[in-house]
Amino acid sequence: MSKQYTTDPQTEEPQETRARIIAAASRVLATKGYDATTLREISREAQAAPGLVHYYFGGKDQLLVEALQAAGQQFHQRMQHLVRQIPDEQSLDAFLTQISERVEQDENIYRLRYESFSLGLHNALIAPAVSERLARRREEIGSVMGTILEKLARTEGVERSAVDLTILAALLLALFDGLALQKIMDASFDLEAAYSVLARMLRGLLVS
Amino acid sequence: MSKQYTTDPQTEEPQETRARIIAAASRVLATKGYDATTLREISREAQAAPGLVHYYFGGKDQLLVEALQAAGQQFHQRMQHLVRQIPDEQSLDAFLTQISERVEQDENIYRLRYESFSLGLHNALIAPAVSERLARRREEIGSVMGTILEKLARTEGVERSAVDLTILAALLLALFDGLALQKIMDASFDLEAAYSVLARMLRGLLVS
Repeated sequence: MSKQYTTDPQTEEPQETRARIIAAASRVLATKGYDATTLREISREAQAAPGLVHYYFGGKDQLLVEALQAAGQQFHQRMQHLVRQIPDEQSLDAFLTQISERVEQDENIYRLRYESFSLGLHNALIAPAVSERLARRREEIGSVMGTILEKLARTEGVERSAVDLTILAALLLALFDGLALQKIMDASFDLEAAYSVLARMLRGLLVS
Repeated sequence: MSKQYTTDPQTEEPQETRARIIAAASRVLATKGYDATTLREISREAQAAPGLVHYYFGGKDQLLVEALQAAGQQFHQRMQHLVRQIPDEQSLDAFLTQISERVEQDENIYRLRYESFSLGLHNALIAPAVSERLARRREEIGSVMGTILEKLARTEGVERSAVDLTILAALLLALFDGLALQKIMDASFDLEAAYSVLARMLRGLLVS
């Protein structure tokens, strides 16, 4: 599982070291689960001194949250760029296609997300960060859907005020995670068909 | 957390003992999480000999699965009865209301479900049971939605073949769990508004 890094710890920027540790933590946590993961193992995977991992992040819970934050931010920026660039009438389908393809491309992210959910539900220390992550993800999805709604308003006569964006984002957040789970747990699950029904549901809600 | 039982282990039926242990396991697992729970603690909560718990269930994973199965079956029977009894045009709203109210009434079930998801994602031993539970839950939701569609076909001219029931059930399963999570992690989350948008989405899909 470990990779060879050719970085020299003497000259590496702190920013790069942090990123390297976060990437290593993502891999180990997604594979072994939160409870079975040790900081020592993350250090080994990151080829970093255990003290350094502790110095930057404190503990596993902080690393889990930071890994999700880093991946979430990156993905969100990609989605915003996508829906802005693409022709108006294709924006909804393009967004949904990216999300459904992310399940295979980024399976580990969904594993990490579910680790954080179960942890947040019984660990009071990490619960606030998980709750905040959910709220943040709702905002991100809501902002992308806002752009899509503007575009659909131009081409399909959709009312921009047709639906509360935060509520719509909450539904989509549940769907994205829940459909990913069903696909990861059962390779024969027809994710494509599910996203095609979701697209119909959204059009039924927005274009009415 | 423990309750006083007036049962006499000498005369109790095996069926009752099993049910008592499952109920105790649900409480302990939902509160402490899977990894922090011990069989000894479940035995104490159930007021049963540790050997008996081991004899009936083998281990924690089996207990988690059985707890979810028992609760799922019971809830499903209640839902089927409900949608059959209720006037046709109210069946969809009545079903959605029951599901949204379950979040507060049965919060522990959702905690257990998320425990099983994160466990299924990194524990190959329990993964098949979790995957099967997901498939079963899709079937159950699909069968309730089938009855609702028949009823809506009589009153609102909905096409019964409007949508693949298993796919629709997959979307609803994702929504029910994901919205419950967001509510449990954030008491201020507007679950009612979310279910009201969901009802509109479903009508948009079915009545078109």
